[in-house]
Amino acid sequence: MADSGASCLPPRPSTDRLARQIAFLVEIDRLKHVLRRTPLADGSRAENSAEHSWHLVVCAMVLCEYAEQPVDLLRTLQLVAIHDIVEIDAGDTFAYDIAAHGSKAEREERAADRLFGLLPPDQAADIRRFWDEFEAIETPEARLANAVDRLQALLLNAESGGGSWRSPGVTRGRIEARMAAVVSAMPALAPFVAEIVEAFSRAGLIAVE
Amino acid sequence: MADSGASCLPPRPSTDRLARQIAFLVEIDRLKHVLRRTPLADGSRAENSAEHSWHLVVCAMVLCEYAEQPVDLLRTLQLVAIHDIVEIDAGDTFAYDIAAHGSKAEREERAADRLFGLLPPDQAADIRRFWDEFEAIETPEARLANAVDRLQALLLNAESGGGSWRSPGVTRGRIEARMAAVVSAMPALAPFVAEIVEAFSRAGLIAVE
Repeated sequence: MADSGASCLPPRPSTDRLARQIAFLVEIDRLKHVLRRTPLADGSRAENSAEHSWHLVVCAMVLCEYAEQPVDLLRTLQLVAIHDIVEIDAGDTFAYDIAAHGSKAEREERAADRLFGLLPPDQAADIRRFWDEFEAIETPEARLANAVDRLQALLLNAESGGGSWRSPGVTRGRIEARMAAVVSAMPALAPFVAEIVEAFSRAGLIAVE
Repeated sequence: MADSGASCLPPRPSTDRLARQIAFLVEIDRLKHVLRRTPLADGSRAENSAEHSWHLVVCAMVLCEYAEQPVDLLRTLQLVAIHDIVEIDAGDTFAYDIAAHGSKAEREERAADRLFGLLPPDQAADIRRFWDEFEAIETPEARLANAVDRLQALLLNAESGGGSWRSPGVTRGRIEARMAAVVSAMPALAPFVAEIVEAFSRAGLIAVE
């Protein structure tokens, strides 16, 4: 609670369980301050990880019919909703930043321990399982969740005229490697993805090497 | 799009269908530009409706155990994820702005027709049903979705030292009337909500009349 006057008492939730849940829900508000390298579709500013996560929820709702394996949609939405919360402590690691990825796992593990640990133990364990599942990209739900995460960045980069693809070190080969997870999880989208990458490459907006 | 349940429709890789889905997913990026009257928890800026919608998804995941009636969590998440999309055309209507509420329904109906109509007809109808259900506040899922919508605003207002409660025309009575939907859908949260409203009232941060 903000310090807004001596007589303004902090809330005293009726149970410790509720207090922990509220503390977590307030703490994750900070995800709205974590900026990604991807711009909004109109290029006006960087996207933040909270609004990105919302976009993924709707992307999964609309595109789940293309999943290569049957998916539990609830589980998929839960995975995308919580997948970036660790960035509150660990920061957003740019998908194409090899150096930063070296320390990403350790930073994010610590962040998961602290942030999910704000919740009551049973819910902390649930969300930790969701996050571990998303990161492992093995279940049908995690494959779809990761695919929409990458596809949504492609949509925003394409709309904004290149976006984070124009960053140093990003090449067509690395974009295609990252998009392989989209094509694998949603094979019907392969021509659409290939067409965008080809068009941007031909226009000289993404580097060949 | 799956209605409520675990399965998604089988793939129908029609180019026109995918084109409509992508057009919708790109268009809704604009929700990230729609500003609400509620500030972020740290008071640094206004919250936008996209990041707000994400916050509600996680609130519903964490707090659904308090729902007064059993809820279908998938359906609840779908309702909160799409409930504000109409604001792209209709704008955010401040909860306590009586005058603006007079034209809200008509503005939002037109917005729903245009925005959901970008999707293939079956998905447009699904999302329209979700939105109608959210607005009617009758099903257990819509009651919980509306409750977390109001509770999350309370959390941010409380954290930021008053937030939108300090706007002209907002009184304790009107806040309590709005919070009745939280108390009704999640009775166990009644003491928590009452305590915050009482503390802010006592501190003179919300108007009595």
